[in-house]
Amino acid sequence: MAEKIVTAEDLANKMREVSVAEFFEKNRHLLGYENTTKSLLTIVKEAVDNSLDATNEAGILPDIKVTLRELSPDKFKIIVEDNGPGIVEEKISLAFGKLLYGSKFHRLRQSRGTQGIGISGAILYSQLTTGKPVRIMSSTGKAIHSVDLLIDVLKNAPIAASKKEERNPDKWHGTKIEMEAEGRYMEGRQSIPEFLKQTAIANPYAKIVYDGPNGKVTFDRAVKELPIQPKEIKPHPYGVELGILRRMATNTHARNLVGFLTTEFSRVGRSSADQIIRLAKVENKNPKDLTHDETGRLHKAIQMVKLVSPPTDCLSPMGEKIIEEGLKKELEAEFFVAVTRPPAVYRGNPFQVEVGLAYGGKLPTDSTAQLIRFANRVPLLYHQSDCATSEATIDTDWRRYDFQQSSGQLPQGPLVILIHFASVYVPYTSEGKQAIADYPEIIKEIKLALQEAGRKLSIYVRQKNKRRDAQLRSELFEKYIPELAESLEKLTDVKRQKIIEDLEKIIKKGVKGEKEAGS
Amino acid sequence: MAEKIVTAEDLANKMREVSVAEFFEKNRHLLGYENTTKSLLTIVKEAVDNSLDATNEAGILPDIKVTLRELSPDKFKIIVEDNGPGIVEEKISLAFGKLLYGSKFHRLRQSRGTQGIGISGAILYSQLTTGKPVRIMSSTGKAIHSVDLLIDVLKNAPIAASKKEERNPDKWHGTKIEMEAEGRYMEGRQSIPEFLKQTAIANPYAKIVYDGPNGKVTFDRAVKELPIQPKEIKPHPYGVELGILRRMATNTHARNLVGFLTTEFSRVGRSSADQIIRLAKVENKNPKDLTHDETGRLHKAIQMVKLVSPPTDCLSPMGEKIIEEGLKKELEAEFFVAVTRPPAVYRGNPFQVEVGLAYGGKLPTDSTAQLIRFANRVPLLYHQSDCATSEATIDTDWRRYDFQQSSGQLPQGPLVILIHFASVYVPYTSEGKQAIADYPEIIKEIKLALQEAGRKLSIYVRQKNKRRDAQLRSELFEKYIPELAESLEKLTDVKRQKIIEDLEKIIKKGVKGEKEAGS
Repeated sequence: MAEKIVTAEDLANKMREVSVAEFFEKNRHLLGYENTTKSLLTIVKEAVDNSLDATNEAGILPDIKVTLRELSPDKFKIIVEDNGPGIVEEKISLAFGKLLYGSKFHRLRQSRGTQGIGISGAILYSQLTTGKPVRIMSSTGKAIHSVDLLIDVLKNAPIAASKKEERNPDKWHGTKIEMEAEGRYMEGRQSIPEFLKQTAIANPYAKIVYDGPNGKVTFDRAVKELPIQPKEIKPHPYGVELGILRRMATNTHARNLVGFLTTEFSRVGRSSADQIIRLAKVENKNPKDLTHDETGRLHKAIQMVKLVSPPTDCLSPMGEKIIEEGLKKELEAEFFVAVTRPPAVYRGNPFQVEVGLAYGGKLPTDSTAQLIRFANRVPLLYHQSDCATSEATIDTDWRRYDFQQSSGQLPQGPLVILIHFASVYVPYTSEGKQAIADYPEIIKEIKLALQEAGRKLSIYVRQKNKRRDAQLRSELFEKYIPELAESLEKLTDVKRQKIIEDLEKIIKKGVKGEKEAGS
Repeated sequence: MAEKIVTAEDLANKMREVSVAEFFEKNRHLLGYENTTKSLLTIVKEAVDNSLDATNEAGILPDIKVTLRELSPDKFKIIVEDNGPGIVEEKISLAFGKLLYGSKFHRLRQSRGTQGIGISGAILYSQLTTGKPVRIMSSTGKAIHSVDLLIDVLKNAPIAASKKEERNPDKWHGTKIEMEAEGRYMEGRQSIPEFLKQTAIANPYAKIVYDGPNGKVTFDRAVKELPIQPKEIKPHPYGVELGILRRMATNTHARNLVGFLTTEFSRVGRSSADQIIRLAKVENKNPKDLTHDETGRLHKAIQMVKLVSPPTDCLSPMGEKIIEEGLKKELEAEFFVAVTRPPAVYRGNPFQVEVGLAYGGKLPTDSTAQLIRFANRVPLLYHQSDCATSEATIDTDWRRYDFQQSSGQLPQGPLVILIHFASVYVPYTSEGKQAIADYPEIIKEIKLALQEAGRKLSIYVRQKNKRRDAQLRSELFEKYIPELAESLEKLTDVKRQKIIEDLEKIIKKGVKGEKEAGS
């Protein structure tokens, strides 16, 4: 075996930095580009998420247009246009052409995007499969700027292949992105139309026009008001890890620990700060000078002092009314109920769970319930079985609410379950952002919401079942009345017609009595 | 509603770059740090993977020592030491203290690590949960260098808190990493001892000593020879995406297309190159000057020309003998069989599947089969249900091989199934590297391997079942011989003893005959 033996020096010579763009290009399945059908959906999803975030922040009622053109059976042109605030010229290339670049990563506030990977990942995929640049057009109301953008993958840096500036007599503002990509188009459960439909349910203040290979669909604005703007909050001390605390202490502008604790965290007042500092025995220290041990003591002391839960105006739930209306608009069911839970906290992050149930009507009776999942108003269409929402739904005992349910399965029957998870930080199980990790606090809240909605639904279901049973019984009985009357006439000498009338009265009373008992 | 309206300028001011270290610190569940039990295992796994890779490459029989000390119920010290080639001083900090830095990302050759994220992710987690630096000691045989290392998360850069150089009279070479971290220790199915045991099965040439909270375990070297070194190969043209082809053409040192195609790819000879260039109509072009369209034509032409499959000496399978021996060493079963499939290709990447089955003996009969999964000789302990290996095993019809199997389940019975997936690039479903993505080519190969092994096993199982049935029948018959002989004596006048002897002969013949028919 004449093998070349590798030395430490050989290994050292081969070491080099890998750009994050290279990493995600090679591992593009991590971003949702593992097959051609899902890839098309992921592109649309990333662009629409960005448009909704941008319009929301600027307080603009969103008008979004999604166009999909088939160039060949495995190649598509995707165009997404919004009426958002636009992007200032100097930032266009970076915002779209550099991974891990954005305005949302360091902010504690509910939003769709956070990482600054989504849309640049889409551009990376477009470039990988077509070799062509992506066109971005944007205006803040002044001139219109167009950039044909490529990503220098080895440097994770944008390359503007060409730039153009146009006059904007109509004062248009917004952003339009236009790209080609390899893909395969399908409609149905995990499709672009389904994604847009669910997006319309969760964002009824948005108008979305979809112009796809099979024609145009318009999701009209159902509500004329934007949701309340979530506010940015500071981190709550309970959720801050030791390493982060250390970094914050090193980088703070505060000159003393009281200042550090009260200004860089939420819910720490002067007296809580004093208490923490005393407990940690770090009086009169400058935050920048804390030793390892002192930071460790500070971290422990924080957990020992009673603090108010983090503020929750960083969240923007859909609300029970919107959820019910959204379900009514899209589903032909007979009963609707929604529950918005009060905010809760996991790992220091405020979050809130909402649930909506649609029941009966034209929903299929012979299959398991359909689950519609949202995180920060974004529909989740993949990896349902990995998601905390599924786990919580399966763990809920639906037999209590008069549904059949096999062990480890969703309940059976004409039921659609909508779950919305809203948080300043959604713990996705992968960068593809399709499933929520199963933190115990999250599972618990989802189950509580499902139980509350389940109880409300079961009252309706029970009444309905009782009415149906009574109806069936009375129908059965009615069939035998003539026969019975004939026999009774013979036995009692009372007229048959009189007996029939009496029996019919009894049946009506019985059904009415059961109805009252059930309500 | 007096909300602050955000303008494009406000948004622009908030935009900034996020370091990849910050990204993974916040999303540490993506690297396998979602809970304290798994976190300890992930640290050990990343360090051991590195030690095995380093010793393998340097042609050294690995001696690895893993020490785990409980500092408090939720805090541990982890030490992993190897006898590898060591790391040259200038590279120690970067190799351990910078994410996405390493020697393996751009190389097509089977190895455990690839991304340059694993061990620096572990250090990131240690620092996050303890605030303390990690100590790295390494020597290439000259001086011993120690570095106390922190990661500057905002810059994704190492900080050497202190450095030391010591004399090395014993010419020690290797690397030792020592860190503290939050964790919880458990033994059992998804544990550190289980990981090391499975590592020993797949790497029988390694000696691994584990000194854990419950005492010392030694996994001795079972084989004195290292596996054949996998060779580095060039990418095969069939698996190269358009975007990558474009980048390769721009960055090549070749001055013409023939040179480009024959030197930068595997399996392209002079005449294949000519054929591709003619088909693409790009004769006499410099690779750097190709237009979008020309690159597109070149990409199409490559797929149209018949090329030999990629070389497979980049792979290093375990081999049937090692798999059988590994199973025999660790499991008390009665029958063992292993199958190594010939190499195959997905997305242009060579890969190879191996399967081992252990059956009967003391394996539990009343549960579903146990699945032991490996990727490039690394045990996979989490996310089994998401893994291509599970999908393929469930999809295989085990009733053909005389096992019971419910739909969508693993087979039932005293069976352990080992699956090894070896490739130059393992398509993990997440950076946590615990499950293999379900590419159709991969599923197909795993099923073929399982079928081949299943057929061999079923011959044994059938013979065993037949022998057992015959045995039962003869035992039953023997019980009645005296009674039968008595009756026959009366009828025939032949002596009872003679009849008994004759009957016993017949039974023996019958059983023997069935044995022969079954073999």
